[in-house]
Amino acid sequence: MKYDGIITPMLTPFKQDGSVDLDGTDRLVEYLKGIGVSGLFPLGSTGLFPYLFSEERVNYLQHVNDIKGDLKVFAGIGSSNTEECVKFGRNAADIGCDILVLMPTYYIHPSHDEIYRHFSIVLDKVDRDFFIYNIPQLSGEFIPIDVIAKLKEEYSHVVGVKESSGDMRYFSKLLPLSGKNFSIFNGQDDLLLPSIALGADGGVCGLSNFNPLIVKVYQEYRNGEMQKAQETQMKVNTLMRAINASNFPSGYYHAFYHKMGMQGGYRAPMLEPSDEAKRLIEQALEES
Amino acid sequence: MKYDGIITPMLTPFKQDGSVDLDGTDRLVEYLKGIGVSGLFPLGSTGLFPYLFSEERVNYLQHVNDIKGDLKVFAGIGSSNTEECVKFGRNAADIGCDILVLMPTYYIHPSHDEIYRHFSIVLDKVDRDFFIYNIPQLSGEFIPIDVIAKLKEEYSHVVGVKESSGDMRYFSKLLPLSGKNFSIFNGQDDLLLPSIALGADGGVCGLSNFNPLIVKVYQEYRNGEMQKAQETQMKVNTLMRAINASNFPSGYYHAFYHKMGMQGGYRAPMLEPSDEAKRLIEQALEES
Amino acid sequence: MKYDGIITPMLTPFKQDGSVDLDGTDRLVEYLKGIGVSGLFPLGSTGLFPYLFSEERVNYLQHVNDIKGDLKVFAGIGSSNTEECVKFGRNAADIGCDILVLMPTYYIHPSHDEIYRHFSIVLDKVDRDFFIYNIPQLSGEFIPIDVIAKLKEEYSHVVGVKESSGDMRYFSKLLPLSGKNFSIFNGQDDLLLPSIALGADGGVCGLSNFNPLIVKVYQEYRNGEMQKAQETQMKVNTLMRAINASNFPSGYYHAFYHKMGMQGGYRAPMLEPSDEAKRLIEQALEES
Amino acid sequence: MKYDGIITPMLTPFKQDGSVDLDGTDRLVEYLKGIGVSGLFPLGSTGLFPYLFSEERVNYLQHVNDIKGDLKVFAGIGSSNTEECVKFGRNAADIGCDILVLMPTYYIHPSHDEIYRHFSIVLDKVDRDFFIYNIPQLSGEFIPIDVIAKLKEEYSHVVGVKESSGDMRYFSKLLPLSGKNFSIFNGQDDLLLPSIALGADGGVCGLSNFNPLIVKVYQEYRNGEMQKAQETQMKVNTLMRAINASNFPSGYYHAFYHKMGMQGGYRAPMLEPSDEAKRLIEQALEES
Repeated sequence: MKYDGIITPMLTPFKQDGSVDLDGTDRLVEYLKGIGVSGLFPLGSTGLFPYLFSEERVNYLQHVNDIKGDLKVFAGIGSSNTEECVKFGRNAADIGCDILVLMPTYYIHPSHDEIYRHFSIVLDKVDRDFFIYNIPQLSGEFIPIDVIAKLKEEYSHVVGVKESSGDMRYFSKLLPLSGKNFSIFNGQDDLLLPSIALGADGGVCGLSNFNPLIVKVYQEYRNGEMQKAQETQMKVNTLMRAINASNFPSGYYHAFYHKMGMQGGYRAPMLEPSDEAKRLIEQALEES
Repeated sequence: MKYDGIITPMLTPFKQDGSVDLDGTDRLVEYLKGIGVSGLFPLGSTGLFPYLFSEERVNYLQHVNDIKGDLKVFAGIGSSNTEECVKFGRNAADIGCDILVLMPTYYIHPSHDEIYRHFSIVLDKVDRDFFIYNIPQLSGEFIPIDVIAKLKEEYSHVVGVKESSGDMRYFSKLLPLSGKNFSIFNGQDDLLLPSIALGADGGVCGLSNFNPLIVKVYQEYRNGEMQKAQETQMKVNTLMRAINASNFPSGYYHAFYHKMGMQGGYRAPMLEPSDEAKRLIEQALEES
Repeated sequence: MKYDGIITPMLTPFKQDGSVDLDGTDRLVEYLKGIGVSGLFPLGSTGLFPYLFSEERVNYLQHVNDIKGDLKVFAGIGSSNTEECVKFGRNAADIGCDILVLMPTYYIHPSHDEIYRHFSIVLDKVDRDFFIYNIPQLSGEFIPIDVIAKLKEEYSHVVGVKESSGDMRYFSKLLPLSGKNFSIFNGQDDLLLPSIALGADGGVCGLSNFNPLIVKVYQEYRNGEMQKAQETQMKVNTLMRAINASNFPSGYYHAFYHKMGMQGGYRAPMLEPSDEAKRLIEQALEES
Repeated sequence: MKYDGIITPMLTPFKQDGSVDLDGTDRLVEYLKGIGVSGLFPLGSTGLFPYLFSEERVNYLQHVNDIKGDLKVFAGIGSSNTEECVKFGRNAADIGCDILVLMPTYYIHPSHDEIYRHFSIVLDKVDRDFFIYNIPQLSGEFIPIDVIAKLKEEYSHVVGVKESSGDMRYFSKLLPLSGKNFSIFNGQDDLLLPSIALGADGGVCGLSNFNPLIVKVYQEYRNGEMQKAQETQMKVNTLMRAINASNFPSGYYHAFYHKMGMQGGYRAPMLEPSDEAKRLIEQALEES
């Protein structure tokens, strides 16, 4: 099975006391069903998985999977602890999530061989489609291209990569791996058009949590409307800069809450954007 | 109360199946009681806290506190989740640990205000002496000096800093905070002598897990034997380079197991050092 | 006037004693006239301008301009010394070079205002079309986007940017500046297709010194042959990795000398690639 | 011959039109003769050598050597061009400068072997005492420790290192090279005390251009007054932070001009510090 299109790295709506908001999640998923994305990615970085307790993660994944409808669920199973990834992976597979998204352990910097060891332990113990998740600016390490190639070759249930480094040169080295049963997604909204122009299969795009423009870039490109796609991508980039005026990912949260007219919360230590940042975000949303 | 001397950031001995080895821990603490360190720091980076499940951490801390004898216990309570730090902090305080060592949340990069928010939440909820732990190469962020100064001013139970960045220029900016009730420790063995020469109160020194040389540097300096201290520090640095020939912290584990004649284990994803690295480590131990 | 297409950042052929080889330069320009590039860029980074004495630079530029034929000459006028840039700029204008390519001063890190001061001094004193050259990995500093925008607005003879950082996110922020009288070029061969897909006007591509594939990427894209352009870009990337197996820019020099059957030299401190690197380069040339 | 003490990396006084001010230089050298430094280092980074034309450099060195009195002259001979270093080196030797200070070529990043090639070419051709100058934050590259060790072994006229990276861990790896005929200097004022506590022979300290405190640190340490040395070093650090409030090295220039009551200039692209920065600098000078 080959995956493509735009996947949403879902933020995790919070109540004002900081607890997980399942009603808000229903509204988010409802919104996403209407804008043409092909999958939901709960418990990624935008979803602030490291801020949640294990039990919260398990419950949240169950809830998202229950309401997914026709969308695929890409379940984030990251942890700084390999055996906990196994535990999260088995749970996500039991729930029925379609794809598991696994990153290297973080905080301690693993060697290349330790990155391989981590992935192979989880892949050996959990039988479900996997995406490899590269996000060195948060996890601390680039996954070497040859480790990805080796995992792809050894494990037929490794079916893709989500590459979020923002480094197009690294990204372009992954593209030769794309094929019938292997998908390459770029995880940075502002790099969607250059990535698919190079042959990427799709994008994991945070702005889709509250705005459909990035889906339009994808569709315009697939329709051969290059000029339109360029123009829409430039609008996306303007929006993205406003959202990132506040420390990641708080701008995404404000934009979503604002769009939905919700009084959402900010799980500690995340802080609500400043008034000035909120103004910039709201203005950018209006103009996009 | 003012803390000084050498603290050991304890590695967590593992059995060959990767489980925590409490007997090995007894041997480690026994060793440490004999070499002149003034405190035990379990569940720091060398102790691989991010690789342990919550229950393992709680049990381990209880065990170390039970056998500490006259040594102070500096309990690592780090997590990527602020509320989990509160939970770990309360538990460590209940157990009777002397000092709690708290770092910023990691993976997601907090802003300066978010770093402050994190610390103040935990400090408000847990009543015990605290050390602030700066280790940007793992946590992803330097704690701004002014945030440390503000926390010190606002919370009388903030009693010190463990500074492990390896950046002496940042470190030297902390030293004016040292005082009657506030201690500054450098967390890099090879920087002990320059740090105490600048006025630091002590060091958190990983090599003390299996070698007493770094304690000797401290004692020689305190005795006014500068020339000797320089020579001993140079020997420490040679040893440290050998230990770090293998990816951090696996060299520390091999050195300890080797010294104790144990067949210890390597919790995943950590890998045993290569034969060549083991040879270098063993040779350096012999020559030190 | 609007510039587009592929520009060659010319290497500077050397004789075996390290002196500049004008005959080799003739052969290089002859080659470039046959592969469809639209301009020559002597005395850029690939041309090792910092290794040449002032007099050598002046003579070389004169020679290249004499033999340029229908090609435009983009003359590198970089120096660590602003007034020397003025001197080189006036000389290049006198010679009749079409465009002057100016970077910030390097070694000492200028502030944003100092970068602006540097450019404005040279632009005030030299009346000729200019390209701004961003190459932070060598010069030490990104040129802030707003400095580029300001220079474009204030000086009508600023007609474009050569952006060689390799950072597509920075690059994409430049694209809104592209227009009737302002061109944006990417200076990294492996980023050509993503760049022109985003709206760039062309590329400054080192591989064109000895291989026409990168010109083909440009032409295929302009002909609307996206699939072909992707495939050709992938071949370019494979070639580029082989060339960069040796420390920049020695691989470019070996590839050129090998292609031309010349016994060229390596100006100190540049060293000839190792035998293994040469083998990889020759093999990649053959397969491309 | 063994070198020690404090060396001043001289700024190059400028007139208001940006030309080199030899009278100002006389006043600077006069000042330096009175504060206990042991050498003058013209044409280093603080001296902005990359902003000067070749002729200016040659004249300036001649002038400084003429007025040096009992002080040693360490002549900066850095360039991005190896053969130009030879030229500058021969000239400085002819003039009678005592020591030549050589860094790797910059802008283009040399490989380790190319760094070695550069040094060996200059060392082979110029017969005079040399210091190796490591300043990776400007030159772009750390000089590998083993390259330094090899040069020391092969060339008896390599007599020391000026290490300005600010990285104490790198610095401490150099110290085993210190010996009867080989000196190790740290080039960062705020690291003087930790460096000499580790065994360094001296410092190359920019603040001595206008303030004697750093010389006092050295003398107090040599007199065994550790506590005093710590306190003086802390004052130095406070002063240094104020000076660096403005982009390097403009704060050094303002501090010198202010101290001397001169209306000095700022060679382009350097800009005069802002009014706020000047106020901070002047206040720090007063309080030091």
